[in-house]
Amino acid sequence: MIDTAALLARLEAVEARLRVAEDQLALSRIIASYGPAVDSGSAGTTADLWTEDGVYDTFPVVLHGRTDLSEMVTGELHQSLIQAGAAHLMGPPRIDLDGDRAVVTHYSQLVLRDEAGDGYRVWRTGVNRWEFLRTEQGWKATHRVNRQLDGSAEARELLVMLA
Amino acid sequence: MIDTAALLARLEAVEARLRVAEDQLALSRIIASYGPAVDSGSAGTTADLWTEDGVYDTFPVVLHGRTDLSEMVTGELHQSLIQAGAAHLMGPPRIDLDGDRAVVTHYSQLVLRDEAGDGYRVWRTGVNRWEFLRTEQGWKATHRVNRQLDGSAEARELLVMLA
Amino acid sequence: MIDTAALLARLEAVEARLRVAEDQLALSRIIASYGPAVDSGSAGTTADLWTEDGVYDTFPVVLHGRTDLSEMVTGELHQSLIQAGAAHLMGPPRIDLDGDRAVVTHYSQLVLRDEAGDGYRVWRTGVNRWEFLRTEQGWKATHRVNRQLDGSAEARELLVMLA
Repeated sequence: MIDTAALLARLEAVEARLRVAEDQLALSRIIASYGPAVDSGSAGTTADLWTEDGVYDTFPVVLHGRTDLSEMVTGELHQSLIQAGAAHLMGPPRIDLDGDRAVVTHYSQLVLRDEAGDGYRVWRTGVNRWEFLRTEQGWKATHRVNRQLDGSAEARELLVMLA
Repeated sequence: MIDTAALLARLEAVEARLRVAEDQLALSRIIASYGPAVDSGSAGTTADLWTEDGVYDTFPVVLHGRTDLSEMVTGELHQSLIQAGAAHLMGPPRIDLDGDRAVVTHYSQLVLRDEAGDGYRVWRTGVNRWEFLRTEQGWKATHRVNRQLDGSAEARELLVMLA
Repeated sequence: MIDTAALLARLEAVEARLRVAEDQLALSRIIASYGPAVDSGSAGTTADLWTEDGVYDTFPVVLHGRTDLSEMVTGELHQSLIQAGAAHLMGPPRIDLDGDRAVVTHYSQLVLRDEAGDGYRVWRTGVNRWEFLRTEQGWKATHRVNRQLDGSAEARELLVMLA
């Protein structure tokens, strides 16, 4: 005789573990979506990765909320970059889940077409730390900080925190 | 009294969700396999990532079927690249599953050893859109398009579609 | 009437499949942790990715055990690199699981801040093959080999094995 109460408990444990795996895959997908969103100039898609009042701290600029985020994409600097050939490359994410919150860490690069040579040059290489919240519309970023790995103590200290 | 019919329904839901997670992991693994396959000159392994009549549209060349794909790897251009030091780097994949079909998007770079300097140079940076089909031999690509992010409208439009 | 023995068998199959998915996610997370560990100079965090007597074969140096690994991070060469601006970038991992053992393959790059230009240069591009063991402290590396893709037969042969 198999105990259906024990079966139920095991099933509930599986459901909880599966949700953790699904969360990791969903958060990975968001990181993999950022590049196509900004490099295609899709302002709304980009802004929707954040909560309505989400913050993007990308030194020396701090963007507050979806309107700021959208204007980053439609702005003159970003438009000139993508029309000359640019790629926002994201490294594999490291995900730290805590229930309905998550922290995601990854490297990023901004690569530009090099008009002088037949190729591309790496303009920026940095580290990113995103904070995510589970919402009714899925995981949304409440905060992202991006810092260049330029030898400054600040970037290394951000990495220490992440290590 | 626990309802075994309800238990069965929950278990079936878990099985379906788990299959979705497994599909995402399997597709990620295929993308992570492409570089080792081509950079080692493994023509058969490369061709087997596609269906028998799978297409690889890499402007200005369009390859049709496994024989074309295999000949790309054994061909003079590719062989000279890998013998001089080359790496086909793939970015993290964004996966859109739809039952037995899937679309996978990622960036890629072709990095070459730079004989002049002590290092490597980024020769190509592009975006890839793969279409996959679930077959009896696992997921196989039916179509892949690769376009350089060189500022052309075509590459950005491909990204808009993907965003 | 639903057969509880059949329910149990299906649940056990799901548990086994879920563990495989979790293992893949855990191993991915380790690879995504390596860069932050070394680029922040976190010697202990880096060494703890390996078993106590784990090996890191990074031609021409072979490091044996956590003390060697820790000293790599605190050593003069590594410290001078990260204080000038350096990023150890990891590509998406390809994971081959076999019970309590796993082999993980990925590309890596070492990118340095280029003082002459406003940007970064790719100093190293290589392939990595890690061997992992499931321990009571989670997955730990027993062996990692790293080889540059410099056109040498050795690197390509490593890739053939991996393909």
